Amino acid sequence: MKTTADPLPHIVVLGAGFAGLAFAQKFPAGLARLTVVDRQNHHLFQPLLYQVAAAGLAAVDIAQPTRAILRRVPNLTVLMGDVTAIDLAGKRVQHTRGELIYDYLVLALGGLTSYFGHPEWEQFAPGLKTLDDALRIRRKVLMAYEQAEAQADEARRKELMTTVVVGGGPTGVELAGTFSELARTVLRRDFDHIDPRKARVILIEGGPRVLAAFPEDLSASAQRQLEHLGVEVRLGQHVKEIRANEVEMPTGEIIRAGNIIWAAGVGAVPLTRTLGLETDRAGRLKVLPDLSLPGHPEVFATGDLAALVDANGVTVPGVAQGAMQMGAHAARLIAAELRVRERTAPDRPAFAYHDKGNMATLGRSAAVAQIGNLHFSGYPAWLAWLGLHLVFLLGFRNKISVLVQWIYSYFTYKRGARIITGVSGEKSAGSA
Amino acid sequence: MKTTADPLPHIVVLGAGFAGLAFAQKFPAGLARLTVVDRQNHHLFQPLLYQVAAAGLAAVDIAQPTRAILRRVPNLTVLMGDVTAIDLAGKRVQHTRGELIYDYLVLALGGLTSYFGHPEWEQFAPGLKTLDDALRIRRKVLMAYEQAEAQADEARRKELMTTVVVGGGPTGVELAGTFSELARTVLRRDFDHIDPRKARVILIEGGPRVLAAFPEDLSASAQRQLEHLGVEVRLGQHVKEIRANEVEMPTGEIIRAGNIIWAAGVGAVPLTRTLGLETDRAGRLKVLPDLSLPGHPEVFATGDLAALVDANGVTVPGVAQGAMQMGAHAARLIAAELRVRERTAPDRPAFAYHDKGNMATLGRSAAVAQIGNLHFSGYPAWLAWLGLHLVFLLGFRNKISVLVQWIYSYFTYKRGARIITGVSGEKSAGSA
Repeated sequence: MKTTADPLPHIVVLGAGFAGLAFAQKFPAGLARLTVVDRQNHHLFQPLLYQVAAAGLAAVDIAQPTRAILRRVPNLTVLMGDVTAIDLAGKRVQHTRGELIYDYLVLALGGLTSYFGHPEWEQFAPGLKTLDDALRIRRKVLMAYEQAEAQADEARRKELMTTVVVGGGPTGVELAGTFSELARTVLRRDFDHIDPRKARVILIEGGPRVLAAFPEDLSASAQRQLEHLGVEVRLGQHVKEIRANEVEMPTGEIIRAGNIIWAAGVGAVPLTRTLGLETDRAGRLKVLPDLSLPGHPEVFATGDLAALVDANGVTVPGVAQGAMQMGAHAARLIAAELRVRERTAPDRPAFAYHDKGNMATLGRSAAVAQIGNLHFSGYPAWLAWLGLHLVFLLGFRNKISVLVQWIYSYFTYKRGARIITGVSGEKSAGSA
Repeated sequence: MKTTADPLPHIVVLGAGFAGLAFAQKFPAGLARLTVVDRQNHHLFQPLLYQVAAAGLAAVDIAQPTRAILRRVPNLTVLMGDVTAIDLAGKRVQHTRGELIYDYLVLALGGLTSYFGHPEWEQFAPGLKTLDDALRIRRKVLMAYEQAEAQADEARRKELMTTVVVGGGPTGVELAGTFSELARTVLRRDFDHIDPRKARVILIEGGPRVLAAFPEDLSASAQRQLEHLGVEVRLGQHVKEIRANEVEMPTGEIIRAGNIIWAAGVGAVPLTRTLGLETDRAGRLKVLPDLSLPGHPEVFATGDLAALVDANGVTVPGVAQGAMQMGAHAARLIAAELRVRERTAPDRPAFAYHDKGNMATLGRSAAVAQIGNLHFSGYPAWLAWLGLHLVFLLGFRNKISVLVQWIYSYFTYKRGARIITGVSGEKSAGSA
């Protein structure tokens, strides 16, 4: 509304995930006016989302209000709204609460769970991208044990106590490990008619090993640790079909399961396909080496919706550090241009991904970590994982709260968030 | 299923609120087999529910899994299920997962928000009885400020920033105080286009004073403290009509408000009216002095669904201490009968309510408390309130977590649970 009267250029940032926040926080004050649009009122610390699903953490522990994070950034407005259309030619963004005109645009809307052309599987095998996803999975898994306790039929009981996780990437192994632990330690003594230690957790991965992005020795270690936690790991198997409480394997085998969780695919938000630009199979925008869109030097794509082989020939992975580095790169680049008041493309610096390492946690004292040429497993990797995630989690209150929960769970073998909410809401929404 | 083979008598407890839990915990081991049925998987600490609604606490902080609480009680089964019918003559209870046959029955299902014959008001003015209610109110209140920020129309903006609380009992004053504080301190610096300090919170009470159950000087003090926090208190006014975002007063005045919250009435669960027994206007069962139902010495009604003038002529109030005392009374009485193996009615001891005092908190350093003849206000009452609620909150983890949140909020003027969840769920459920 105030665009024409305002002398400062206007940068619109779509999304307040890792990429969008990094941009807003790295962009030097005074050079432009920023508007950050997000459909949620909070930044979500996705790496801990699986712990909310597994009843270890409260939803609010891993989220931080976007307004609170960016409160001290001058010339910045936060808007809560859904982006509905982007007009690249007219430099306009439509969202549910109005329209924005930009001089620069930073796309950082992230990804969605992708079902590889089987959208109908979503209703039977939810994914894990948002807090609501996590709370839905928590509810379903905890409810399955409650239903099993009151169930006289042995086959149905077994089915309710079986969880299938599809996809052996970081999210998949973390979910499988923590659900196995939930049954074997946390719920162990709570029921009269069922023995939660008999619960089955099956992890299905299409490739030849879990954690394909990790070195081979760590993949093997992760698999051993998962099996030690009671997870059945099935490699080299793609699921053929998913129906209600049923996974069909290529061999024709049918696995009946009270819970099926999809952790096999992430795609960019559908909006990327509406721009008339080239995308990869997952819908990610193919960006130029500087992260800008071909033909639109004023538009940058960052994080999970950008596809890029970087200056060193590395395919930038869809992880938090990649998104943060991309956001920071775009911020530096736009700031440099605004300082000299001219567009420097095509001579802009190319983005180069700096891999700081990789970690995944599997359960209590169980993890794998790779930092440069160093490979860790088990307890040391787990400690490193805990420390790093506490450091990167935003918000002092959240850090303290998560630390308290972790210490509590470590010593008591309990989980503090074993609370089922939203049952009536689910009902009225028409699902089970 | 095992009823006939089991030599121990079977006591069925319906509800795991304060009354039901007190019964299960006070009942001596070895005298009977207990089954506790509740529609939730958790016991809810209702006195802190308003802080979840006001984004101060996480939902899981004030709830504790019923199974975890009662894990160590021998001969006790917990079932999660909705009670659908009670057959007093046949001594049977139907619930969503099966049927139970009892020797003794303890009704402790609690209450519901009551709209005094205006059930259509519920959709416009939600009540606060469950965690889902609290999360819904939190979402709506936080969303109203987000919408106001993006709203160009001044009148609509004012409306969004107005909250009406109907009912001046403890829940009503606590909600009004905390919502006024939320706007004036917590959200104050977070928006560009609106000034949350201009938010209006209006408390409407039909009677001549707030907190009618308290001594008059404390009612007056509570009102002063509320007004100091910025709440507009309107006494002696019943609302005439509630519509979407609109409250009509008897004078014809229309108050437009983005949020209307109903804290004016509690009634017993509707099941009480299906038993063919006498109930009061709120649906509470009129019990005999020993808490049993007329003609059914094996059935006891406790907590919010029982109406009783006790042995000292005191109407037992619908508060946690009343419910806990009733549960404990029924436990002692049944245990005594089982020990002598005969029914002692009509010579059973009558229930006598022991009033340990009353407190309500209004905001930061603002509260009223009455213990015997001692009346406190302000800071000392607030400290007493904090301490007592921490002591009575169940679960070590919850105590620590709540204490951390309170200390954090006290020093930072922030609230850790300012996270909006369930927006998509709301949409698909067809509401705003």
